[in-house]
Amino acid sequence: MATLVILRHGESVANRDNIFTGWSDVPLTPKGREQALAAGKLVAQTGVQFGALHTSMLQRAIVTANIVLEAIDQLAIPEYKSWRLNERHYGALRGHNKAQVRDEVGAEQVKIWRRSFDVVPPLLDHVDQDRRYDRFSPHLEPTGESLEMAYHRLLPYWIDTIAPRLLDGQNQLVVAHGSTLRALIKYLDRVPDADISKVEVANGEPIQYDFDDQLHILRKTVL
Amino acid sequence: MATLVILRHGESVANRDNIFTGWSDVPLTPKGREQALAAGKLVAQTGVQFGALHTSMLQRAIVTANIVLEAIDQLAIPEYKSWRLNERHYGALRGHNKAQVRDEVGAEQVKIWRRSFDVVPPLLDHVDQDRRYDRFSPHLEPTGESLEMAYHRLLPYWIDTIAPRLLDGQNQLVVAHGSTLRALIKYLDRVPDADISKVEVANGEPIQYDFDDQLHILRKTVL
Repeated sequence: MATLVILRHGESVANRDNIFTGWSDVPLTPKGREQALAAGKLVAQTGVQFGALHTSMLQRAIVTANIVLEAIDQLAIPEYKSWRLNERHYGALRGHNKAQVRDEVGAEQVKIWRRSFDVVPPLLDHVDQDRRYDRFSPHLEPTGESLEMAYHRLLPYWIDTIAPRLLDGQNQLVVAHGSTLRALIKYLDRVPDADISKVEVANGEPIQYDFDDQLHILRKTVL
Repeated sequence: MATLVILRHGESVANRDNIFTGWSDVPLTPKGREQALAAGKLVAQTGVQFGALHTSMLQRAIVTANIVLEAIDQLAIPEYKSWRLNERHYGALRGHNKAQVRDEVGAEQVKIWRRSFDVVPPLLDHVDQDRRYDRFSPHLEPTGESLEMAYHRLLPYWIDTIAPRLLDGQNQLVVAHGSTLRALIKYLDRVPDADISKVEVANGEPIQYDFDDQLHILRKTVL
């Protein structure tokens, strides 16, 4: 038996300003830091001792993760940062205000881009030059992703890095993003493609999964 | 060529209260967090892009490290936490006020315990039960260390983990403790045993080493 806790970062300046973000590396707001601390206190109440923390390469998740580790007094555990846990890449929508885009293309199109499983947003015409991603070929770096594409690049991290530790009986903490956590929930809860639009993950709201020793879900709890 | 920056954590509550600490996991004071932020701004001015951060398993170093990574906008780099970078274990002196101990045993004895290279403090009669150290045999967990003992358990981490990355041309950041950084400086600067008592490392004061491609020191700068 082992426990997984997943957590979406606290409010970022892009959440606050209603901006499409994805791989843009925006900071938390002061409210976002408070949400992270509140989430940490909820996780502390569970008493779960984690074997490792997994987060993305984006500061809004990393800072949230560090605030949580301090709140649960488990700063010494290994902390892994992977691009596979990054938010879904929003392509050319990145940096645009969601309400303005809605005015331009209509609410239905924006909803499809935000909540559908397989619709790809308009792509960027270039990859970012960012040294944190220089370990993999530019051919692999996305210029925009559907939720399905994010799901497929997230899964190897789950299968190779998180799941084996849970199978070894080590509790794991994952601090990531709205879309990548929706993708993970889709996998864990076997949500059909058509139903994923209904799944939301709130900023700073920890979700606990308790697994049996074959990684079947015994219990799912919103903390 | 590669650059190493070493940094002692900001003021801890034990620094503030003049207490022997070692492996006790005490938090930073508010002043200590400010020192960490100020150190981060100094490191940011160098413009050095780090390949990895190395810190101890103690929260005063880890929190300092996280504040620095945020200040230099390099949160995404790998962060490694090793007991080998922990402060020197102060044995049975741990938790005692330095002034009170001085009153009891004399200033000269306290100076010897604090600043000599090979004098071992009074030992604990047990090892701590702490899950962060349960990966190694209780026979290896110290119950008190001279600076020399800390030096010998630190060196494998330098040789196996930090130095190879520098030789690969990746800049490295180390956030650790007064005694372990004195030990590292002793090794890098080839300080004789008798002279190490004169080496001090202040809270929150970054020291930069620039190395050539064979790890000879080109320049040492206090930032």
